Amino acid sequence: MLGAWCLRRALRFCSSAPFPRHKPKAKLSVRDALGAQSTSGERVKVQGWVRSVRSQKEVLFLHVNDGSSLESLQVVADSSFDSRELVFGSSVEVQGQLVKSPSKRQNVELKAEKIEVIGKCDAKAFPIKYKERPTLEYIRQYPHLRCRTNVLGSILRVRSEATAAIHSFFRDNGFVNIHTPVITSNDCEGAGELFQVESSSKIKEPEENFFNVPAFLTVSGQLHLEVMSGAFTQVFTFGPTFRAENSQSRRHLAEFYMVEAEISFVESLQDLIQVMEELFKATTMMVLSNCPEDVELCHKFIAPGQKIRTYAKKQLFNVAAVDLLVPGVGELFGGSLREERYHFLEERLARSGLREVYQWYLDLRRFGSVPHGGFGMGFERYLQCILGVDNIKDVIPFPRFTHSCLL
Amino acid sequence: MLGAWCLRRALRFCSSAPFPRHKPKAKLSVRDALGAQSTSGERVKVQGWVRSVRSQKEVLFLHVNDGSSLESLQVVADSSFDSRELVFGSSVEVQGQLVKSPSKRQNVELKAEKIEVIGKCDAKAFPIKYKERPTLEYIRQYPHLRCRTNVLGSILRVRSEATAAIHSFFRDNGFVNIHTPVITSNDCEGAGELFQVESSSKIKEPEENFFNVPAFLTVSGQLHLEVMSGAFTQVFTFGPTFRAENSQSRRHLAEFYMVEAEISFVESLQDLIQVMEELFKATTMMVLSNCPEDVELCHKFIAPGQKIRTYAKKQLFNVAAVDLLVPGVGELFGGSLREERYHFLEERLARSGLREVYQWYLDLRRFGSVPHGGFGMGFERYLQCILGVDNIKDVIPFPRFTHSCLL
Repeated sequence: MLGAWCLRRALRFCSSAPFPRHKPKAKLSVRDALGAQSTSGERVKVQGWVRSVRSQKEVLFLHVNDGSSLESLQVVADSSFDSRELVFGSSVEVQGQLVKSPSKRQNVELKAEKIEVIGKCDAKAFPIKYKERPTLEYIRQYPHLRCRTNVLGSILRVRSEATAAIHSFFRDNGFVNIHTPVITSNDCEGAGELFQVESSSKIKEPEENFFNVPAFLTVSGQLHLEVMSGAFTQVFTFGPTFRAENSQSRRHLAEFYMVEAEISFVESLQDLIQVMEELFKATTMMVLSNCPEDVELCHKFIAPGQKIRTYAKKQLFNVAAVDLLVPGVGELFGGSLREERYHFLEERLARSGLREVYQWYLDLRRFGSVPHGGFGMGFERYLQCILGVDNIKDVIPFPRFTHSCLL
Repeated sequence: MLGAWCLRRALRFCSSAPFPRHKPKAKLSVRDALGAQSTSGERVKVQGWVRSVRSQKEVLFLHVNDGSSLESLQVVADSSFDSRELVFGSSVEVQGQLVKSPSKRQNVELKAEKIEVIGKCDAKAFPIKYKERPTLEYIRQYPHLRCRTNVLGSILRVRSEATAAIHSFFRDNGFVNIHTPVITSNDCEGAGELFQVESSSKIKEPEENFFNVPAFLTVSGQLHLEVMSGAFTQVFTFGPTFRAENSQSRRHLAEFYMVEAEISFVESLQDLIQVMEELFKATTMMVLSNCPEDVELCHKFIAPGQKIRTYAKKQLFNVAAVDLLVPGVGELFGGSLREERYHFLEERLARSGLREVYQWYLDLRRFGSVPHGGFGMGFERYLQCILGVDNIKDVIPFPRFTHSCLL
């Protein structure tokens, strides 16, 4: 294995590159500081943003958050520290000793020896006033700042964790990850409106397409996954999907994320349902294990009246398709067995006048066709479902919908 | 923690759903069959596609591949099996006993008791003749079939593995994954050509935009990551990126993948370089550990003359930016420290007449600004680099470039 050996050697060389390894020995994230087991006066450095300041006669309490967890780290300083710039929102670097906290509200706190304000904050001008408990709707106006609130912080951490869980689930189960294309020339499959794509310099000369043909933003990776399931048996994709629907409802986005899987040699819908179920369970268990406080915040403050509803309400019809509908959220999963028989498919395509354009799709049934099927899961709807978030615009970092494309 | 408790209960309910758990006890992937430790005559079922058939007087040898590994499973049958439909490319289900192979070429083989042809293959019409060793350029004409060749199979398995490794690397290092938007109204940052996006029903009425403003496909998630680094300290994104460059070179795609990271509180370029290095090393080590045969195939057959070149050739300039250039591939990494000072940035934006449009970007420097920086890694270029693949179109499942958007 000469090639791999060379690559390994190159990596070793890479690690001895002439840059001093910057090892900030005592630099800790807030999450790691909060979880520290030994608090025997270890000297550490923590960086983050001030969430609150409370000044008593001889003591100054700061809460510092760096986004690594919902909880902030309590910093205790003596009142000799100049606190004028230590206001809400300013960024700070605190050095000191991690000690056991006398309070029951936290296990550890940071006894400050040095506090440096890195960036001031014009707190009066900051449009989101935490104490006024702004609504999700209100903070939606500030897509560049709302991520600094507790609730959006929690939602986006859960989103990140769920993303990692989905990748792990498929990898652990032998699926190959396929990056299905965003730009596609398939235009006939979607029922809804499509987005068309053109080079901005050519958009005024419609007869000349950048790709020679009209090109669109994908509405589903299914056909591309079907290609790949004929080589890898089990494949998935997880990426952005688009609908140019003229809807500002709380259920629709123009750009949203879908998890799609395609499996060869499936024998029945049950095979698909099992994978859907296991995906849902594995992802949710990982989120619950790793972000319990974030999930709890959402359940408490976002949907106080909303009890967790039945997640397993399945609607099975007597056809080769299954949908999982969740009350208040809509269709979460949709799956079906695909037509694998050449002649049936050929006839159907011919009837729609698509025989020629989809010869490649027919080819898949000409060269070792297999029974196969797949499903899609709307990722934002999944997040709404487990977190109880009412509006889909609040579970995606930068929502895009008709009349709105902020930032 | 009532909410989470309810959710857990719902999951338990979910697992007792009234569907029989389909446990195909003896169904094995080819990879698992090849790796089986115990071969004491265990009865198993393997499904896949016939890669080769060799018929001897009393024995029939089949090689069956299901895409789970480069290597195929050898199936041994007695010549009483009807082999007329057992041709290259047909899909089969084989039941039998997994036994130790007498040959040194493989550890185990499957002694067939039953072979079922699931889908025939019109082998003469199949446009890729394996024995003729078709070139990568030739098979590029068949994006729906080339994934069934050894070489594309290996490349796409490595791509999948590298993707998983990148997600793991960032998660293990405390980065939050942000899905930066594909559609954006920022149009001024890119030097190159942009793709514009419009609802296909509105494309003929340019005065009416779906999003009210002209919208484009992203050329970088940097600005959106800068927003998020002000909340989560360490963030990354990994997704499709677009350039409407009129280039058919072996180095450019209209749709390609980028890994981008943004880090708050960085002190110098070294901090960024360290992360880039560790990302490269961790990802490559994971690929080498988990897909050694796939990497080896690429090194042997794709770039026989090409020795692994120096990967660590760094070009450091005396400015706050770093690029990593790889011979034959181009820029692999690009990173820089960002301007975090309000007044400097304001002046620069005002000079370009962008002061108002980018007030949100200025805001990030008004409310607790921090020194920060980030980098991007071209994912296809990374794959080219570790696999020695010359043309970027061969390391992405469905390449898009000027004049071409197949499937």
